[in-house]
Amino acid sequence: MPELRKDPILGRWVVIATERVRRPGDFARPPSARRGGPCAFCAGHEFETPPEVLAYRDGPARPDAPGWRVRVVPSKFPALRVEGDLERRGEGIYDVMNGIGAHEVVIESPEHDRELGRLPVAAVEEVLRAYRDRIADLKRDDRFRAVLVFRNRGVEAGATLEHPHSQLVATPVVPLVVADELHHSRAYHDYRERCLFCDILRQETEDGTRIVVESERAVAFVPFAARLPFETWVLPRRHAAAFEQSRDDDLRDVAATLRTVLGKLDRTLADPPYNLVLHSAPFGVGESPSYHWHFEILPRLSGLAAFELGGGFYVNPVPPEDAGRVLRGTAPS
Amino acid sequence: MPELRKDPILGRWVVIATERVRRPGDFARPPSARRGGPCAFCAGHEFETPPEVLAYRDGPARPDAPGWRVRVVPSKFPALRVEGDLERRGEGIYDVMNGIGAHEVVIESPEHDRELGRLPVAAVEEVLRAYRDRIADLKRDDRFRAVLVFRNRGVEAGATLEHPHSQLVATPVVPLVVADELHHSRAYHDYRERCLFCDILRQETEDGTRIVVESERAVAFVPFAARLPFETWVLPRRHAAAFEQSRDDDLRDVAATLRTVLGKLDRTLADPPYNLVLHSAPFGVGESPSYHWHFEILPRLSGLAAFELGGGFYVNPVPPEDAGRVLRGTAPS
Repeated sequence: MPELRKDPILGRWVVIATERVRRPGDFARPPSARRGGPCAFCAGHEFETPPEVLAYRDGPARPDAPGWRVRVVPSKFPALRVEGDLERRGEGIYDVMNGIGAHEVVIESPEHDRELGRLPVAAVEEVLRAYRDRIADLKRDDRFRAVLVFRNRGVEAGATLEHPHSQLVATPVVPLVVADELHHSRAYHDYRERCLFCDILRQETEDGTRIVVESERAVAFVPFAARLPFETWVLPRRHAAAFEQSRDDDLRDVAATLRTVLGKLDRTLADPPYNLVLHSAPFGVGESPSYHWHFEILPRLSGLAAFELGGGFYVNPVPPEDAGRVLRGTAPS
Repeated sequence: MPELRKDPILGRWVVIATERVRRPGDFARPPSARRGGPCAFCAGHEFETPPEVLAYRDGPARPDAPGWRVRVVPSKFPALRVEGDLERRGEGIYDVMNGIGAHEVVIESPEHDRELGRLPVAAVEEVLRAYRDRIADLKRDDRFRAVLVFRNRGVEAGATLEHPHSQLVATPVVPLVVADELHHSRAYHDYRERCLFCDILRQETEDGTRIVVESERAVAFVPFAARLPFETWVLPRRHAAAFEQSRDDDLRDVAATLRTVLGKLDRTLADPPYNLVLHSAPFGVGESPSYHWHFEILPRLSGLAAFELGGGFYVNPVPPEDAGRVLRGTAPS
C-alpha cells in the first residue's frame, strides 16, 4: 500500500511508494518508451489490460472485446490503490494517510497512431464525455476529494506509452495546484464578487492579442503570464466550477476548440511533447461562483531547471502575444 | 526590457521576455550543450565574460585575469535586467512590472572538469562564501526582495553550460516556493512557538532512518515527504533564517556536508543530473524565528509529467527511508 505523506513546509501531499527499493542503479536513467504498435491498448488486445470500467461501443455491448471507440480501464501500475481506508495519522510532527485513490486510463482510440489532435471532433468529444462519466462515478466514493485528469504526449512530457491515452487519478486530498487556484480565485471573488476566470475571458476576448481560437461556447488563449512558451488554456464561456456538471453543448464546443488548438500546436511546433491537464472544482465545492473549470496545455519545449523547480519562478522566452499571433495564424486542419 | 507578469490565478510572477519571437521552429527542440573545454568560464578566458563582480585570488588582485579560485560575473543572458525602475502597474485585471533584477554566475573552479562534489572542502566553502558575499551586496539594492541561488547539473536538469557554476538571481518579488515555505512555517510557529525546521531536525536526528550524514553543525537527510527519488536537504543545526547572516563555522560544516552528499549521490546514481537550490529568508524578513535557511538537492532521474507539473502532485517510487539507508551506506570519498 503506497502512503500519502504531507510535506509540512509546503503543505503538499506526495505519494510515496512503499515497496522495497530495487538496486540504486535502476534509478540512474529512466526507461525509454517502446515505439510502434500494436500494444495492450490496441483493438484486439483487450485481454492485456485489467477489465474495462467504461467503453463506448456500437451495437451489442460485450465488455473487453473489440468494437469500442473509447475505453477506460484501471491502470496496471496505479499510483494509488482503491481498496482500504484512509487511516489518517501522525508520525511525530508529520502527517500520513494510506495511499487510497483510483487510477484509470482513458484509451482515446482503438488505433495506435491516432493522436488526440488528429481524431474527428466527435471522437474528441467522446473522450471528454468519458472523463465526465468517470468523474461522476468516482465522485460517489466519499473517500475521494477530487479527480485530476491529464495526458502526457511524448517522452519529454513523461509519456511511457505511445498509444494515445489520458489518465484519471481520484485523490483523497485536493491537488496542490487546484487548491492554490481555488484560494486565489476565492479571494478575488470575495473582493469583487465576480469570477476571476470570467473576468479573464472578458478581457482576453476584448483585447484579442492572446486569443488562439474562439467559438460560440469556448475560448482558447495564451495566458497573460504563461509560464511556458505556447502554453494555451481552453475555457467554456459559461461559468461552471465542476467539469462533471458541464452541459453537452459546452462540452461539444470545448472538444472542437481543444482539437483545433492541439492541431495548431502540432503544425507550429512539429508535434511537440506536451502535458494537458483538466482543472476542475474538487468534490464538495459544487456550484462555486468563484471557480471555473478549464484545460491547460503545457508544451514541453525545454527542460525545467532549478529556477522553476526549486524556486517556482518561470522565465518564458516567448511573449504570450507572439505565441497567440503565431497560433492564431496557423490554419486549422 | 523583460516584464514580470503575475498569474492572477496562482499568484505567481513569471518573467516574460519581450524581444520579438524568432521563427516558431526555433522552439521546436532545445539546443544541446557543447561538450568539452576550454570555455569562457575557464582560467585564461576571463575576457570572454562580462567584467567580474567578485573573485577570490591569492596575491595581488588584478581583476579579470587568471589566478582566481572562485569568480562571479554577471550573466551574459540575464533573465532580469539591473538598470531601471520597477514601474508597477496594472493592465486591466492583470499586474505587471519591469523585469528588474540581477543575474550573476558563480564560476566554482577555474578548471572545466572539476565538479562541485569533487572539489576540496575548502573550495566548496569558498563557493558558499561567494554566495554569502554576493547576497550581502545585492541586499543593499532596495529594489530587490530576495536572491535565489541555484545550480543545474546535467542537461536533463537544465544546464546549458558544462563548466561547473551556480547562478544567483536577485528578484523584486519573493519566489513562490520560498513564499509558500514562509507561509507554512509561520503558521506552524504561530501555533507551537517553535521553528518547524528545528523540529524537523530534532525528529530526523532522533529517528535516524532518513539521515544521510550528520556533523557537528549540519545535518543532511532525505525529507519525509520527498517529492523526488533521493531528494536530500542540508540544514545548519543552528537556527538562522537568512543565509547571508550565517556564521563561518556553520558555513564550513554545511560546505563539508553538502560535498559529502553530492559525492554520495554521484557514486550511488552514477553522476545523476540534479538541481541544487538555496532557500533563504527574503530581505526584510530578517531574524525570523520561524524560517530556517537550507539547501535542497533534487536529483532529476526521470522527467516531470502532467501529474507533477499540472497538478502539483508527486509520486516518489523510492521510499525516503530506503534512499536514506542507501546514501548513508555509501562510503564518503
